[in-house]
Amino acid sequence: MEAYKVIEIKESVFADNDREADRIRAGLKGEKTFLLNLMSSPGAGKTTTLLRTIEALRDDLRIGVMEADIDSDVDAAAIAKAGVRSIQLHTGGMCHLDAGMTEQGLRELGTSDLDLVVLENVGNLVCPAEFDTGAVKNAMILSVPEGHDKPLKYPLIFTVCDVLLINKTDVLPYFDFDLEKVREYAHMRNPRLQIFPISAKTGEGVSAWTDWLRTQVREWTK
Amino acid sequence: MEAYKVIEIKESVFADNDREADRIRAGLKGEKTFLLNLMSSPGAGKTTTLLRTIEALRDDLRIGVMEADIDSDVDAAAIAKAGVRSIQLHTGGMCHLDAGMTEQGLRELGTSDLDLVVLENVGNLVCPAEFDTGAVKNAMILSVPEGHDKPLKYPLIFTVCDVLLINKTDVLPYFDFDLEKVREYAHMRNPRLQIFPISAKTGEGVSAWTDWLRTQVREWTK
Repeated sequence: MEAYKVIEIKESVFADNDREADRIRAGLKGEKTFLLNLMSSPGAGKTTTLLRTIEALRDDLRIGVMEADIDSDVDAAAIAKAGVRSIQLHTGGMCHLDAGMTEQGLRELGTSDLDLVVLENVGNLVCPAEFDTGAVKNAMILSVPEGHDKPLKYPLIFTVCDVLLINKTDVLPYFDFDLEKVREYAHMRNPRLQIFPISAKTGEGVSAWTDWLRTQVREWTK
Repeated sequence: MEAYKVIEIKESVFADNDREADRIRAGLKGEKTFLLNLMSSPGAGKTTTLLRTIEALRDDLRIGVMEADIDSDVDAAAIAKAGVRSIQLHTGGMCHLDAGMTEQGLRELGTSDLDLVVLENVGNLVCPAEFDTGAVKNAMILSVPEGHDKPLKYPLIFTVCDVLLINKTDVLPYFDFDLEKVREYAHMRNPRLQIFPISAKTGEGVSAWTDWLRTQVREWTK
């Protein structure tokens, strides 16, 4: 009984959310600001990847960051050190951001003078995938220690993403992780998924990802 | 506006769920069956840890397993090979199990001739922590590659758990993971949390955990 009730409510929430997300995207287009939604499991390396990405793009693009967390400021502190404009969004226990929360964050951050805003979503492979945040592109990180079977077990997030970053390739020798298998499983879910193996720790492979992102931002903001 | 509406609904769902969870626990007590709820991020090693746990306890206890997954059967297939009674629960996109879904699973599995049932929850550090499943004890796994800051970022799950297994200690040399820091942060959230560092892959440290679990099951079912 409860489950059925919850699902009904979710459906109307989703429809409202999708309309709001479309409105956010239209606003960003008008302002020439690109919003990237970055998702992953806890500990897959979102913040480290973001720091590498900022390092690679900061000379070409004006960047802002929104750090979503349940109630800590650990990541925002790390990003603030990198010297880009950033804010912390506390979800108050919620497992994801929806379009309304993203819009509040964008307003708080101030986006009219930014080319690229990155939203670091809550660490979770399930809920964030269900809510369109208004981002222009969705990226996810799967880290080597998590295993290559994840596209089989968390299908939705692989379906809604445009890019899959396979992080922590520096520890490939210590894990039973099959890079070809993960490509195969991920493309079963989403044939147009762009896949970039990277090590945010060593920097290996990062430039292919940041080149792709720079091109996407220029395309959107031209 | 939407966020507020959702939270109101969640509160009534939580109250219903808690009553149902208490009813499940009372039923299990009468039947002398112990239910363990096992939670973690995706890829932290729930299934491998469970296989090690079954190996250590199968001569002493009659064990059953409920594998919750969004829509795959990957884990149930692995558990079935271990030769214990198991069922797969598909949550149909939901990020957690609530008491009602757990009760359906227990009925389907059949528990009257079992001493220990393990519920392997959906891989997620946020949502499963919010719903009491009716389990006698809650255990979580944090794996070394996820980092020692997780108790700061996902506080609720550390608060509701009785046990924290720190898995993948075999790869400690390759990660910046501070075992003392994670103990300190986890105990800030929950001073009575039992912590066992293990490697489910090599078996190191597993017996301290399974000895603790055996004692808990005997206490509950005596």
